[in-house]
Amino acid sequence: MKNKPLILVTNDDGITAPGIRTLIEIMNEIGTVVVVAPDSPQSAMGHAITINSTLYCDPIKITDGPQEEYSCSGTPADCVKLAVNELLDRKPDLCVSGINHGSNSSINVIYSGTMSAAMEAAIEGIPSIGFSLLDFSWNADFNPIRKYVKKITEQALLNGIPKDVVLNVNFPKRKEDEIKGIKVCRQAKANWVEEFDKRKNPMGRDYYWLTGNFINEDNGEDTDEWALSQGYISIVPTQFDLTAHHSIQQLNTWSL
Amino acid sequence: MKNKPLILVTNDDGITAPGIRTLIEIMNEIGTVVVVAPDSPQSAMGHAITINSTLYCDPIKITDGPQEEYSCSGTPADCVKLAVNELLDRKPDLCVSGINHGSNSSINVIYSGTMSAAMEAAIEGIPSIGFSLLDFSWNADFNPIRKYVKKITEQALLNGIPKDVVLNVNFPKRKEDEIKGIKVCRQAKANWVEEFDKRKNPMGRDYYWLTGNFINEDNGEDTDEWALSQGYISIVPTQFDLTAHHSIQQLNTWSL
Repeated sequence: MKNKPLILVTNDDGITAPGIRTLIEIMNEIGTVVVVAPDSPQSAMGHAITINSTLYCDPIKITDGPQEEYSCSGTPADCVKLAVNELLDRKPDLCVSGINHGSNSSINVIYSGTMSAAMEAAIEGIPSIGFSLLDFSWNADFNPIRKYVKKITEQALLNGIPKDVVLNVNFPKRKEDEIKGIKVCRQAKANWVEEFDKRKNPMGRDYYWLTGNFINEDNGEDTDEWALSQGYISIVPTQFDLTAHHSIQQLNTWSL
Repeated sequence: MKNKPLILVTNDDGITAPGIRTLIEIMNEIGTVVVVAPDSPQSAMGHAITINSTLYCDPIKITDGPQEEYSCSGTPADCVKLAVNELLDRKPDLCVSGINHGSNSSINVIYSGTMSAAMEAAIEGIPSIGFSLLDFSWNADFNPIRKYVKKITEQALLNGIPKDVVLNVNFPKRKEDEIKGIKVCRQAKANWVEEFDKRKNPMGRDYYWLTGNFINEDNGEDTDEWALSQGYISIVPTQFDLTAHHSIQQLNTWSL
């Protein structure tokens, strides 16, 4: 790439989150950065889009730097659609989403606003990466992973991401010198077992809070969960063709 | 199955939608039905879940019949989580979601609340089917597809749905005698090209409405789009392992 790449930055924790501010700083070292991110936290929004309501999207400047920034009232996927189809003059060379405060490994990819933004970009033909750190705290320390975010992004620009594939990158919560390296993995087969905390509101009406435990029964050493537990960064190539091709033959034996 | 199967019914158009009322009637002919559905329309919610807010879920009765019904303030995925982990005494034998007013074929599966509910059930180990009719109208005519919904459901109960697979069933908008049959398909590679309608609100602030055109450049005759265009019902086996296994080898050639 002769000129500086155009990089779209978004997330789901909202435009003021420390994770996206870190990501903007790193991307400013690599390319021309345009930020289009939600004006409020949108975690666990999955691939929601706004079709029955209006969207606001305003230029803003949260921190110093050469980046252009827009704050948007919609979901992460809305932000990408607005950026690509309304705000940017040309298709970006790369979309990066995150750095998410919290894991998007294994089944979390399904619920993740961070990954849905990255996936939306990939659907629109833009090479795309979602970054997540296994630390839910607003004050999470992103410094140990800066050099890895930069390295993975540079390798993606150099090699090209395979067509119709999005990278789901998760970082263990470790000191820089305790991170063992990077593993390309498959999505572990794990899931949440929910428990609902049932309470009464001040008017006496029952309501519920979702809580749950993460259960991983997948012992494979080629999974993202395994890599992260061992101190590696996991990269799962992720796709939006959801067809279970292997089961088509079996379904064709049904009497339909 | 010796006893009547326990069938969980949900949707994304809301508990009063004609599509789910039709689905409840059909399921009442097959099993013991419990309905847990959103109290308001939740289209295009993707796989959103409610983690930072409360959920209400109340017993209700919309139409006559033996079914038990609950109206829930959350997303389609929330409804399934609440049903399985809080409301039902045992894991249901089947979850059916829909009948959606509008298509969930090809890339629409990613944005679909109907399919996210079905997928949530599958993640929790419950055989699961999403049904959608290619008619966005609230007054869509579901009568031509009743016998097919019943047939597919009965076949699923008889044969068992392959593990970790959800069926994404779409019906063409046709008269009953013009429906040509059922095809097991792959998800077509198609996408939406968005256009935003930019307007000014009464206070003079810019806002946007999302609109778009559906573009299918996949000419394969094994796709859901092809089947539907020819008057067939499409069944796409759909999975929640999003790993692009075929690209792992290529990513392992990167200098990471």
